Amino acid sequence: MKTPSLKGAAHPREESDLKQEKSVIDRVTNELRLARHNWREHQGRELDLGSRELPSNQAIHNVVDSLCAILFPMRLGPPDLTKERENHFVAYSLGTVERELVVQTCLELCYADRNQQATETLRHEAGKLVGDLIGELPALRRKLDDDVLAAYSGDPAATCVDEVLISYPGVHALIHHRLAHALYQAGLPIIARIIAEKAHSATGIDIHPGATIGRSFFIDHGTGVVIGETAVIGDRVRLYQNVTLGAVRFKEDETGSLTKGEPRHPIVEDDVVIYAGATILGRITIGRASVIGGNVWLTQSVPAESQISQASLQQR
Amino acid sequence: MKTPSLKGAAHPREESDLKQEKSVIDRVTNELRLARHNWREHQGRELDLGSRELPSNQAIHNVVDSLCAILFPMRLGPPDLTKERENHFVAYSLGTVERELVVQTCLELCYADRNQQATETLRHEAGKLVGDLIGELPALRRKLDDDVLAAYSGDPAATCVDEVLISYPGVHALIHHRLAHALYQAGLPIIARIIAEKAHSATGIDIHPGATIGRSFFIDHGTGVVIGETAVIGDRVRLYQNVTLGAVRFKEDETGSLTKGEPRHPIVEDDVVIYAGATILGRITIGRASVIGGNVWLTQSVPAESQISQASLQQR
Amino acid sequence: MKTPSLKGAAHPREESDLKQEKSVIDRVTNELRLARHNWREHQGRELDLGSRELPSNQAIHNVVDSLCAILFPMRLGPPDLTKERENHFVAYSLGTVERELVVQTCLELCYADRNQQATETLRHEAGKLVGDLIGELPALRRKLDDDVLAAYSGDPAATCVDEVLISYPGVHALIHHRLAHALYQAGLPIIARIIAEKAHSATGIDIHPGATIGRSFFIDHGTGVVIGETAVIGDRVRLYQNVTLGAVRFKEDETGSLTKGEPRHPIVEDDVVIYAGATILGRITIGRASVIGGNVWLTQSVPAESQISQASLQQR
Repeated sequence: MKTPSLKGAAHPREESDLKQEKSVIDRVTNELRLARHNWREHQGRELDLGSRELPSNQAIHNVVDSLCAILFPMRLGPPDLTKERENHFVAYSLGTVERELVVQTCLELCYADRNQQATETLRHEAGKLVGDLIGELPALRRKLDDDVLAAYSGDPAATCVDEVLISYPGVHALIHHRLAHALYQAGLPIIARIIAEKAHSATGIDIHPGATIGRSFFIDHGTGVVIGETAVIGDRVRLYQNVTLGAVRFKEDETGSLTKGEPRHPIVEDDVVIYAGATILGRITIGRASVIGGNVWLTQSVPAESQISQASLQQR
Repeated sequence: MKTPSLKGAAHPREESDLKQEKSVIDRVTNELRLARHNWREHQGRELDLGSRELPSNQAIHNVVDSLCAILFPMRLGPPDLTKERENHFVAYSLGTVERELVVQTCLELCYADRNQQATETLRHEAGKLVGDLIGELPALRRKLDDDVLAAYSGDPAATCVDEVLISYPGVHALIHHRLAHALYQAGLPIIARIIAEKAHSATGIDIHPGATIGRSFFIDHGTGVVIGETAVIGDRVRLYQNVTLGAVRFKEDETGSLTKGEPRHPIVEDDVVIYAGATILGRITIGRASVIGGNVWLTQSVPAESQISQASLQQR
Repeated sequence: MKTPSLKGAAHPREESDLKQEKSVIDRVTNELRLARHNWREHQGRELDLGSRELPSNQAIHNVVDSLCAILFPMRLGPPDLTKERENHFVAYSLGTVERELVVQTCLELCYADRNQQATETLRHEAGKLVGDLIGELPALRRKLDDDVLAAYSGDPAATCVDEVLISYPGVHALIHHRLAHALYQAGLPIIARIIAEKAHSATGIDIHPGATIGRSFFIDHGTGVVIGETAVIGDRVRLYQNVTLGAVRFKEDETGSLTKGEPRHPIVEDDVVIYAGATILGRITIGRASVIGGNVWLTQSVPAESQISQASLQQR
């Protein structure tokens, strides 16, 4: 018995089939229009937010890939690049990134601007924000070099620094975070979040763009790591997979809405190591050089040089 | 010392090299043929299943991306779409999706059909299934609007509903799940599973297409969440990363094979919150408005409004 | 109120704007050049490693996708392939893969070779390594067939073996691992790691290419699984999501550097099942046919047929 190939074949359709299909599509198109209308009425009472253009996921992804290539041309840039052509590639790519990022920044500023200023004003502001970001890239590169070294020296399975740079998910997530954090601080939370979620999807590491992270940071393996918006992490900190730096519970205001923006995530001081699966919640402080064992559940501050493990917690 | 460029260079090959390479390839091709033959003999005793065409991952991914764009044209559709052209875009895309999905549905029906009915009968059935699915899209959109609102109000870090829609992995996974569930219920488990795994790969959230999920559902962060085939979730439920709604242990029939399809995953009633890392196993019921704390391990039912935490479990 | 379209519009720029932008780009290009120079001086004291070409992520990804299609042509190959053309497809693709993989292997051998041998010698070695790998493919296919059967019989939600093959992340990760492990053993750790991280990104399953894994292995769901470099896993072993087979703590040598390559991950004997979230650390042995319960934390060996659960650990 032969299985007939169905792909690509233009099946002869009955006239009635086509008519019915058309009427379904017309009806569904109309009902979807109504659903969008109701949603927009419900949401955009004051301003027609629903029909404003947003920054594009795809455009931001392209910009970020270019920024990675600009920061590490021979490792994350085009495969046929040679050392002699690095500067030309970097200068040319910076120009391209600058233009596209100004466009996307304008979209976010327009979207967020409830007073609907003139576009020219916003475009000028966007140009300034993007210029500042580009100016920070050399310092960012030096920070990332420290992160790469931290990964290499923190993992006995690493064979060389270049392996770490091109293949470690923790490094990939951190390059994205340091870019996203700069944009978040510049007042562009939506673009920043798009960048963070690009890294989250690729690595399973979920760092909110608002989180503040010191130098020489290393996340090994990384899947399931969550670092919240107001977390503050010192220098030379090391985390493993499934570590959560989260909030305990959210405050509600008098209307029952959640209070936004309050410090609600942990402070992790310099030289702390946190092993896989540890959950650390609330605005508490993990003192300098502490070691938090795997799967530990922690909701209170610990002093410097603490050694916390599941067993020691049970003995208290 | 110069590192020679190896890429793209056509190396002059010795005649003997080429001969040896050819003989390796011929031998390996033949051994692979034999391996496929043995596998098919072993599997497809009755029917030549191994040579039947299956639905295509790539085709299904394209259909799902189009459906996302149809449901939210200005947010998940093409970046240059304007409000004025939304209806045209939706109607046109519905037609495209309808055609491709009928082809893929036929492939699954043919594959699954042990009696090998005439293709025309299956094509007719496929057309009906796909028409029904398209008819459900407006109701689906309204459900998803509730999910977006649930995400916005459930996360203090969310700046606006549009940020939630375009960047939250929990929302992305849920759009995919609600589509996959409709196809699963229509008797298309393979297409449904392809959709579920597309979302799982992008978000780390693994929801079996068979799971039943009520309105206003929100998963925050999401990496590591697993929701099993027969789980039933009520309205306004909220989950965090690494929550498992799983099975305890599988029943085997008299031949030692696993019994398929039995209810074996939890029932979670309305207004329940389950914090990160909680593992809930077996056909138990989490009563209405209960709060299950982080990392809790639960294999027995709890009544409405329970507050379960690791500590309270130890005190029992 | 009209939201102005910003995309693609060529904004008239002030002469001064353009000048300023150019000077920023020139300055940043120069500072980035300096940062690269400092990094390379710091790293490549003896050899100019930083400017050597590395294997390309994109090229390796293409090779691996082709190898998947060669191993399972009708399921992971091109959608329009028919049974009659399978052999031609396999033979042709093997030739393509052979050529590209020799190029990438040369790049890794050149990069790693501190003595900088003649390229022709390395090319010959690369040809031999790649030929050996291709010769192993039929045995690899038979191993993977066993893995597919193990997944099908280990999951009550699986409807057919083909669903398992095309959609299960555990199977996807294992195809990649078995290829990566062969390359790791051939002395190509960077290419092997690129393959492992491709699977890690797609599935959330992080298996180091060095890990040794027996026949009929199944990982269900899989997100968050970590299997370390020196882990040894027997036949018919089953794991669930978030299981870690990791190292306890790393030894440092007299200079404070981590000792690389030492056996430091668990040995898991035949027929063991390890449920979700279990963490097993150090060079310990899990005896034959043991069952390790969910969320168990284990740092000491257990004898054959042990049944370990959280409760039983507390009773000790």
